[in-house]
Amino acid sequence: MRMLRMRSKPGYLTQVKQSNMSAVLKSIWEFEPISRVELVERTDLTSGTLTNLTQDMIRGGIIRESESSHGSVGRKRMLLRLDTENYRIIGIDIGRNAFEVVLTDLAGRVIAASEGSTAGMDNPDSILDLITPSVQKMKALSSDSGNKLLGIGVSIPGPMDMQQGILLDPPNFPGWEQYPVRAELEKRMEATVLINDDARSSAFAERWFGLGRTTSHLVHITMGIGIGGGVVMNGEMLYGANGLYGQIGHITVVHNGEPCACGNLGCWETVGSIPGIMRNWTDGHGKTIMNFFEAVQRNDREAARTLEYTLSILTDALTNLFNVYDPDVIVMGGKLYPYLSRYMPEIRKRVQSRVYPFVRERVRIEASTFGTSQSAVGAAALIFDRLMREPLDMIGLS
Amino acid sequence: MRMLRMRSKPGYLTQVKQSNMSAVLKSIWEFEPISRVELVERTDLTSGTLTNLTQDMIRGGIIRESESSHGSVGRKRMLLRLDTENYRIIGIDIGRNAFEVVLTDLAGRVIAASEGSTAGMDNPDSILDLITPSVQKMKALSSDSGNKLLGIGVSIPGPMDMQQGILLDPPNFPGWEQYPVRAELEKRMEATVLINDDARSSAFAERWFGLGRTTSHLVHITMGIGIGGGVVMNGEMLYGANGLYGQIGHITVVHNGEPCACGNLGCWETVGSIPGIMRNWTDGHGKTIMNFFEAVQRNDREAARTLEYTLSILTDALTNLFNVYDPDVIVMGGKLYPYLSRYMPEIRKRVQSRVYPFVRERVRIEASTFGTSQSAVGAAALIFDRLMREPLDMIGLS
Repeated sequence: MRMLRMRSKPGYLTQVKQSNMSAVLKSIWEFEPISRVELVERTDLTSGTLTNLTQDMIRGGIIRESESSHGSVGRKRMLLRLDTENYRIIGIDIGRNAFEVVLTDLAGRVIAASEGSTAGMDNPDSILDLITPSVQKMKALSSDSGNKLLGIGVSIPGPMDMQQGILLDPPNFPGWEQYPVRAELEKRMEATVLINDDARSSAFAERWFGLGRTTSHLVHITMGIGIGGGVVMNGEMLYGANGLYGQIGHITVVHNGEPCACGNLGCWETVGSIPGIMRNWTDGHGKTIMNFFEAVQRNDREAARTLEYTLSILTDALTNLFNVYDPDVIVMGGKLYPYLSRYMPEIRKRVQSRVYPFVRERVRIEASTFGTSQSAVGAAALIFDRLMREPLDMIGLS
Repeated sequence: MRMLRMRSKPGYLTQVKQSNMSAVLKSIWEFEPISRVELVERTDLTSGTLTNLTQDMIRGGIIRESESSHGSVGRKRMLLRLDTENYRIIGIDIGRNAFEVVLTDLAGRVIAASEGSTAGMDNPDSILDLITPSVQKMKALSSDSGNKLLGIGVSIPGPMDMQQGILLDPPNFPGWEQYPVRAELEKRMEATVLINDDARSSAFAERWFGLGRTTSHLVHITMGIGIGGGVVMNGEMLYGANGLYGQIGHITVVHNGEPCACGNLGCWETVGSIPGIMRNWTDGHGKTIMNFFEAVQRNDREAARTLEYTLSILTDALTNLFNVYDPDVIVMGGKLYPYLSRYMPEIRKRVQSRVYPFVRERVRIEASTFGTSQSAVGAAALIFDRLMREPLDMIGLS
């Protein structure tokens, strides 16, 4: 809606152009297919400026023209849309026991994927040695098909210094403290690398490639070994004062509950995560979460009791999220979610009975769009997010 | 940082001017005293545009020039600051049992205040009849001293339709359902009227007239008959998809707890508010919250037990707020807070022991700047907020 105005300052023109191009590109993403006339309306740019910017982006290969099928008689109306085919993005999800690498187009469609186990490994260099061949293969796939690689996004357990690209002190992730993962990957891959924690990356996947197309307020929950969150309000990911905004796994749901690795007591993560459920299941020693849900299916009494407790805590937690963030939709993913999905119709009913009456009918809880690949696709979404914000730099048009 | 650009559309020039003036006014508010040169840097406007805008605002009486005491030799450097003296704002807090009216300047300083009881009254018109003489007195005070009235803000229990200025179905506030409080007051007072719920108004007081001067992420908690919240992130008040963002009193803190008026179970409000404490105090029948804290002072055993429970729940709740919103500061107010304030050093220590270790030293919990007048001053802040966003319309400069 706004543009910067010229001023005699070095780099200022480029900054103006970047900001204007970002505004145009976001509008094309949101409203495609869209005409130049509509874009002038939406961005408040002059039609001359708009024509130049769209020309640059067409030349750069990130948008394209298509003819309207509803054009008026005797005159073809040219519409603009994102060109998702010229560029590719690589997304890498580095988890505590496994990794996944995906190659996507600019719509977040997965063109190739590869995964592997890192169980028992605690040397980041060795883990990157293991991942590198998959990434190289994706790079080759991309160039073989004539595409340019826009960049490499990485999802990894937090907390981290995103600007510096360095992990801080991630719990249950030995060996990675202070590891400069971004610099190391940039050196190995000769590409732009961005990192974010897996919970926020997963939310970015939803924001750009999933339900975020139709809503601007969403909460994404990643449930697995831990419980993480990413919160998008008014279309923007929120980080808070210390990068801790959305630590939803660390809401106390059990008063005077068990100590959590984060320092708090009775966190949702202590009872609602995979390890939390296994601790609550008195027969769980030496068994897996799959064994637990099998026991539930066999109507095992202890397993049923533990499940009911898990679901009642989940109901509390989801209700809390509606009351603190008031999202249009809560999106759920992570390794635990596939086991929970069959109970969601029941959970939705319970949550509906707990929120403010006037929003009951608006309670929307959905499965994450990319299932178990959410975090890897989200890593790719980090690069897409940068493209939306800084297209000139990302495409090298300046 | 941005400006709109001219276009041949009716009203467009005015819209551009409003947006630019708002950016300049906010920068002056944030960085005063500030020179025109610095303002050009901060707003990216041309120096010609900036000079025109500041000239208009000086003429309009909302900013003024002052000489720098550190001007370089031989040349006086003129700095700009807010002019807080030409305009006055009236803030009205309408509570369930009482009302308060304040007259403030543009810095939120209370120039005159008046209050009264509405206990037992459930007819909005009668309550407005009771409040109107106080408001008329403030209007007279303002014009007697040669000031112009900028507008009247109203804090009132929610939920509400802020745009329409109509209350929806506020709990424990009989007679006010669907009452058009804004239209009614505009008719009576012949002034611009804005309404918001008391919890968010109190947060606005802090955002514009209190700690918000030095921080852009804050949570304000109003504790009394209920527990309400207002959350400012990146300097903006958040509302969510349905106006329910920040319903912090309705986080479940007791699993399988008591039903709350909101529809949820075990809400913080059910145990942490004044009625919640009185229900937990087994000797509380027929007594007041003051009696309760007197009993605590007498080392009454039951009162001490209830207090300890209240404080342990408060610790959970505050820790939750740090983990979900990651604010720079949590600000506490409301009728219950004065009784709690003596326990805050202990509470702060407990919360510090519960948040992520790397932010322990950053835990900041403060008393609200305006004490028991927070909500009335916050009502005035609603008008100030509008001035910051739409100065042309508010001052009639267009």
